[in-house]
Amino acid sequence: MSILSLDVGGSKLLLARFSQGEIVEERQIPTLAHEGREALLKRMVELILSMKEDASSIGLLIPGVIYQNSYVRKCSNLPLNDFDLKAFIEKETGLSAFVGNDVSFALYGEWKKRGGHFNNVVGLFAGSGLGGGLILGGELYSGQGAAGEIGHMNYIPEGRSCGCGGWGCYESYVAKSGMLQRLEEFAQEGGNSILLEGRKSGEMLDSRVLAKGYKLGDSLAVELFEESARALGSAIASLHAVLEPDLFILGGGVVDDYGEEYFDEVNKWAQILVMPSMANTLKIETSMLKGKAGIYGGYYFAKGK
Amino acid sequence: MSILSLDVGGSKLLLARFSQGEIVEERQIPTLAHEGREALLKRMVELILSMKEDASSIGLLIPGVIYQNSYVRKCSNLPLNDFDLKAFIEKETGLSAFVGNDVSFALYGEWKKRGGHFNNVVGLFAGSGLGGGLILGGELYSGQGAAGEIGHMNYIPEGRSCGCGGWGCYESYVAKSGMLQRLEEFAQEGGNSILLEGRKSGEMLDSRVLAKGYKLGDSLAVELFEESARALGSAIASLHAVLEPDLFILGGGVVDDYGEEYFDEVNKWAQILVMPSMANTLKIETSMLKGKAGIYGGYYFAKGK
Repeated sequence: MSILSLDVGGSKLLLARFSQGEIVEERQIPTLAHEGREALLKRMVELILSMKEDASSIGLLIPGVIYQNSYVRKCSNLPLNDFDLKAFIEKETGLSAFVGNDVSFALYGEWKKRGGHFNNVVGLFAGSGLGGGLILGGELYSGQGAAGEIGHMNYIPEGRSCGCGGWGCYESYVAKSGMLQRLEEFAQEGGNSILLEGRKSGEMLDSRVLAKGYKLGDSLAVELFEESARALGSAIASLHAVLEPDLFILGGGVVDDYGEEYFDEVNKWAQILVMPSMANTLKIETSMLKGKAGIYGGYYFAKGK
Repeated sequence: MSILSLDVGGSKLLLARFSQGEIVEERQIPTLAHEGREALLKRMVELILSMKEDASSIGLLIPGVIYQNSYVRKCSNLPLNDFDLKAFIEKETGLSAFVGNDVSFALYGEWKKRGGHFNNVVGLFAGSGLGGGLILGGELYSGQGAAGEIGHMNYIPEGRSCGCGGWGCYESYVAKSGMLQRLEEFAQEGGNSILLEGRKSGEMLDSRVLAKGYKLGDSLAVELFEESARALGSAIASLHAVLEPDLFILGGGVVDDYGEEYFDEVNKWAQILVMPSMANTLKIETSMLKGKAGIYGGYYFAKGK
């Protein structure tokens, strides 16, 4: 008996089939979100049915606010707002469906892959944005439904504007959306950087290019790296004071592509900025599953945890 | 059958006897912590026995890190570090004892007094310091033992030094320890303020004096009021992004003595600084039990919740 897990991303739909705890088949198609809800749902169902075989259940990862593993309350990049996705998928495919926030599922995947031993774990995933997930008391924690928005804690009073409509959020310093603001400001000032080569204005940064620029010692790339690591260290230190979890797990393109030097710098700042009497309980690791963490989380949920 | 609750504070021991949910008797003696552990324990036992009557159990509030409602792991103001207070009190008094952190018990008291309906509640208590407590999933949350140190989240990078050994913590802007730093700096610069009248250097501020200064429009007092309210609003906004609790409860001398205008200012800043998409789930109230919240929390614990 196999289990499916579908990552419903803003640009691609990635479906994986799991057997005995490992991915045995993957298929990917573009999301084409601009075609609207009906077309998107049709593509999802066709993709699922094409790989259903002996599967009995499916996990679905959505970049949005999800209620009760069923209902998409809000999702800015996909035409699925206020929609009972679980009921729809179950009716159309005959599979049991479990819907979750992509970042929460990513943390869940990391946690289960480690054996699920820790009671309290905080995940921070830095890519275009800075997403967060919380496992508290051995369960995914969602507050009133939207908890875990770690990237939107206040960092710099009256700092950079943020995609959320606020300003000075951690996301605006840790993640690529914030780096992009600084890069465009730098370009307007006539600055010179490897990161500006061959770019179209407004295009999202590629974390592999950021990592390459840093390794080459490009001054803007070094500035962005240091600013990001310090901000992420500060977020971790603040969260440790509040939640003192057993473990922090860091993931996302920024963490993965910058690699060990970034992790060391984040760790350094977290140790500098944490409440001194709590420094000895602070533990940080990087993602084991990298880009596949969410897919694994969906699988574990669909499997019945 | 009555129940006791003892607030073991840095300067006073306050014992209350509860009957049918209300305080029917109170007695207070000085702590005299400088006389050492043995003398302190003797005073505590004598006080308890003097009011024991038909009591069967007692709650004990300690300003420190407590493990498993029994063991004082760390307590900076009292000579009780690494001591099994529960076992000692039970042996010496014959009562069942429940030991807890004073701020956690204060939040617990507020929560139970409201009927215990909310699943997730965050408490912030601003006095000399800024203490925090968390109820998550209907239970007090303590992480690895010391969680809830909300006052030691990072606020201003490279900001004021803090009693915790770090710097720029929320406590250094919200609470009186931080206001004191600003006041002394102001005095050294030769500034003139009602708050400086009749003060001894190093003496802790009185929140009633702060409130009076603010009402009189004293410029330093207004500055401290505004800085404190904005910082507390920022802490609430950040915590709402992470935990999205059902309710925030504010208490402590600063909140109580400044009164409604302070609450309104905190609320204003929390609404400005919260992640816009989560503003509609933000709910803040002030303490119902004021200085008695912790004593009530100890009572509820001793009662078997």
